[in-house]
Amino acid sequence: MILARVKGTMVTTRRAQKAQGARYLIVTPCTPDGKEAGPAFVALDTMGSGPGEVVLVSQGSSARQTEETKDRPVDAVIIGIVDLVEEKGKLVFKK
Amino acid sequence: MILARVKGTMVTTRRAQKAQGARYLIVTPCTPDGKEAGPAFVALDTMGSGPGEVVLVSQGSSARQTEETKDRPVDAVIIGIVDLVEEKGKLVFKK
Amino acid sequence: MILARVKGTMVTTRRAQKAQGARYLIVTPCTPDGKEAGPAFVALDTMGSGPGEVVLVSQGSSARQTEETKDRPVDAVIIGIVDLVEEKGKLVFKK
Amino acid sequence: MILARVKGTMVTTRRAQKAQGARYLIVTPCTPDGKEAGPAFVALDTMGSGPGEVVLVSQGSSARQTEETKDRPVDAVIIGIVDLVEEKGKLVFKK
Amino acid sequence: MILARVKGTMVTTRRAQKAQGARYLIVTPCTPDGKEAGPAFVALDTMGSGPGEVVLVSQGSSARQTEETKDRPVDAVIIGIVDLVEEKGKLVFKK
Repeated sequence: MILARVKGTMVTTRRAQKAQGARYLIVTPCTPDGKEAGPAFVALDTMGSGPGEVVLVSQGSSARQTEETKDRPVDAVIIGIVDLVEEKGKLVFKK
Repeated sequence: MILARVKGTMVTTRRAQKAQGARYLIVTPCTPDGKEAGPAFVALDTMGSGPGEVVLVSQGSSARQTEETKDRPVDAVIIGIVDLVEEKGKLVFKK
Repeated sequence: MILARVKGTMVTTRRAQKAQGARYLIVTPCTPDGKEAGPAFVALDTMGSGPGEVVLVSQGSSARQTEETKDRPVDAVIIGIVDLVEEKGKLVFKK
Repeated sequence: MILARVKGTMVTTRRAQKAQGARYLIVTPCTPDGKEAGPAFVALDTMGSGPGEVVLVSQGSSARQTEETKDRPVDAVIIGIVDLVEEKGKLVFKK
Repeated sequence: MILARVKGTMVTTRRAQKAQGARYLIVTPCTPDGKEAGPAFVALDTMGSGPGEVVLVSQGSSARQTEETKDRPVDAVIIGIVDLVEEKGKLVFKK
């Protein structure tokens, strides 16, 4: 999994049948202390994630292992909202 | 998933049996505001995507989770045509 | 999928049981106009691809969705031989 | 699989249902001699790995092939704690 | 698949249950003529590969399609030992 920061949303009027009825968010990979790192991608959101939040993203076939994504053409899903990150006993990120 | 821009088409007279009867497009990954970013790849199109359009692409085994791609040797599929992208309350892409 | 150019062949006398009896080719990712781009890798060939040809390669679990690769430890397969690539109404590659 | 070094932990109060009850660690890919190499990511820990330890991480769908990760939205799992690494007859890492 | 060169071995006393009883090798991706290219990773060896040998490695879920790796948390497996590589009619690697 990777940490990512929620950047924005998108509207896609025409979608494949199995891709309908879901909320897709634009996210950017980020470092443990929340700095953006790497190109933006799109993840399905099942958590009600808000803009600016740091989230935990699962990718690949593992992204289909939730109730909402099963059998769907989804390769990235938000599976948690990050509250705290700690490295070497030091708090490096706090929501 | 990633955002990508449709660049072109290709002709492949000889194809593996399970790869026949589909439309493959040349696409380029793009940023949320539609700028090309990264090397071109090939995605199966089930949406009638046109040249220059920004599309949503699902990759890996998840690309086989549509009616048209099931059990096919397809590792990238276009699952939506992007109309709008919004970041921090600002419209960064409009079709 | 990606476009790749056939570079060479290899001999592997000792192979895992399920990897026997197949033809592996050395290929290099290439741009839509056929220029090499990126490090060489190895793809199973089911099309009789020849040296120098530009081919369509499917990767990951999708590479196992052909008759010849089913249940095999194969993560890249050639599924088509490219004749023409067109971008913005212009022919950028011709076999 | 890759070698990685355990860097820290995280707290995610809100998690997808199938992502609950597990321990996620922040890890960084590392070279055979234990030097950090590449951006941090998140792996599920089933081994009781401690901070600073060098671990063996399996990724993708293979990360779901343990008792603890089966059918879970997990794309990286720690499957071993590394004691020694040897290259060309020379010990390059010792725990 | 990719070509890789065997660099070393590792000892992991504590391992996940399904990761036990196997031989893991440190390998480095290499070019068709055997030059190292890219960061080292770990592959399961089922061929008795020796140090310095150039091997064929299958990755991802395809790495689980051998008798020895079935249902195991293994994302890279050595499926062949390379004897010769030929490019444009020229021998570029010989064991």
